Amino acid sequence: MSTYEMITAAHVRVSPHARRTPLLSSPFLDDIAGRRVWVKTECLQHTGSFKFRGGWAAISALSDADRARGVITFSSGNHAQGVANAAAKHGVSSIVIMPSDAPSVKIENTRALGAEVVLYDRASEDRNEVEKRVNPDGARIFISPYDNDDVISGQGTVGIEVAAQAVENGITSAHVLVPSGGGGLASGIAMALEELSPGMIVHTVEPERFDDIKRSLKSGQIERNAQTSGSVCDAVLTVCPGEKTFPILQRLCGDGIMVTEQEALRAMVLAFERLRVVIEPGGAISLAAALFHGDELKHDDVIAIATGGNVDAEVFNNALAQFRSQS
Amino acid sequence: MSTYEMITAAHVRVSPHARRTPLLSSPFLDDIAGRRVWVKTECLQHTGSFKFRGGWAAISALSDADRARGVITFSSGNHAQGVANAAAKHGVSSIVIMPSDAPSVKIENTRALGAEVVLYDRASEDRNEVEKRVNPDGARIFISPYDNDDVISGQGTVGIEVAAQAVENGITSAHVLVPSGGGGLASGIAMALEELSPGMIVHTVEPERFDDIKRSLKSGQIERNAQTSGSVCDAVLTVCPGEKTFPILQRLCGDGIMVTEQEALRAMVLAFERLRVVIEPGGAISLAAALFHGDELKHDDVIAIATGGNVDAEVFNNALAQFRSQS
Repeated sequence: MSTYEMITAAHVRVSPHARRTPLLSSPFLDDIAGRRVWVKTECLQHTGSFKFRGGWAAISALSDADRARGVITFSSGNHAQGVANAAAKHGVSSIVIMPSDAPSVKIENTRALGAEVVLYDRASEDRNEVEKRVNPDGARIFISPYDNDDVISGQGTVGIEVAAQAVENGITSAHVLVPSGGGGLASGIAMALEELSPGMIVHTVEPERFDDIKRSLKSGQIERNAQTSGSVCDAVLTVCPGEKTFPILQRLCGDGIMVTEQEALRAMVLAFERLRVVIEPGGAISLAAALFHGDELKHDDVIAIATGGNVDAEVFNNALAQFRSQS
Repeated sequence: MSTYEMITAAHVRVSPHARRTPLLSSPFLDDIAGRRVWVKTECLQHTGSFKFRGGWAAISALSDADRARGVITFSSGNHAQGVANAAAKHGVSSIVIMPSDAPSVKIENTRALGAEVVLYDRASEDRNEVEKRVNPDGARIFISPYDNDDVISGQGTVGIEVAAQAVENGITSAHVLVPSGGGGLASGIAMALEELSPGMIVHTVEPERFDDIKRSLKSGQIERNAQTSGSVCDAVLTVCPGEKTFPILQRLCGDGIMVTEQEALRAMVLAFERLRVVIEPGGAISLAAALFHGDELKHDDVIAIATGGNVDAEVFNNALAQFRSQS
């Protein structure tokens, strides 16, 4: 079970290698939101997402014997790059199972970082079955993208930084909005802030039609999405919250927030215009919630975690053309 | 005359308000350059460029009597926003004279930050004449974009940060590439590094057809460009180096580097893909020099100052469509 102590231990292993990503703001975004908006730019993290942290935390925690076995995981692309990078830097062999409709930039980068990529068809194949086929005897260590205590602890190091940066910026109470697929990042951040910054309340944010965590938190049991693909927010399309993460989210988080794909794309364009950072659609849903769902919030400050920046140029171009400020 | 002591004094005034912008890198960029490439992301600075620093340094240095007179300046947009922001925060009235063909995002933001904007036609009007018309009795304090000791000192605070970040990253000798119009930033950085990090050598970088500093450094006297507009690198289109900046550049800088507009746009797209930051074309010429002009460099490390990120969406879109990695 993940604990705050595991997060501080992961911080010792991860922080010498990770970037302490800046907390950015803009008066133009504050005006839109009607409150102070802070963006934690994990899109500027190595490999372009916070998944660098969980990947590094998990690989660095392996015994020498387990490192020799190699690792395997599945991911739409950000955890893929985090694991590929950490494995290569630790001299560990890695295989990543990725959906064939993942953004091509993510597939290419995962390969370039040193992993063997196995593609599968999201619509017709089950990724667990693919994993059994590729790793039949369980020889390789499986590293879940979110239901793994070391991964959760690694993602929780974002919470340690957020707590420190809140103090630096005079923020004492705030909503912390976290784009969520399986819930690993939100769980880790919530545990860190419970200890370090009790004035903060974490909310998971999900895109429309993939609001499994929001519904699960409401019903008190794990709810599932009807579909597994078909949103531009590819980074956060998970069937349901994890068995390890859901109890943590239930204990520590406020209500979940759901945003539309259009809101996500508008937030991505505003980040381009006002913060000069590149956020992928699934990573911009937190900023979208901060800007366009203010009626679901009460504090004067909101911290949006921008989880990643690995967006295909074509998607970015189309959004810019559609949503840029008129001038 | 600017001195290192003025830079440290400016640092005391500016740094509590400026962002310490991160030094980013990517193994993919290192591969292209064949050496380690570090990008100092002043595009993430408040107002979207390093000009925040010079503007703040100059306004904060004014006496109460001078603040009451108000300020006036001219700028294609980044110094405009820096001065507008600093003036508003200090309760000082500001007028900015801008070319009518400046990027609309820059004109709009300058107004939104509180300045009165006066547009002029670059082709048919002289901006000094416009300044005399708008400020006939010299009632307002004129703040030159580069030929002002406080402005140069404010820009020099970038050099103080670069010196510290070089130590943090184990960089002892490097080329420091600085996009240059009038030469204020390059002068300030060079003076700071002369004191703090003598293993660094500063080079000005300019776009094709606007290589006045490169030619001036070569001939030993101030050379001028034949034209004043007509490049996508709007931020660095100055007629000639300043009277205050040129002697500093002569004393401290290595050879100037000139890049093409196409190289600037390619570098802008690579920064999108590999660093997830938005750099404007004129701010990306330093990265372009690092990536595509390696034969003019010798050290294993190169630090490219990414000076700003205020680019119109349409320019960005066209460059992405033209130069994105094939996939």
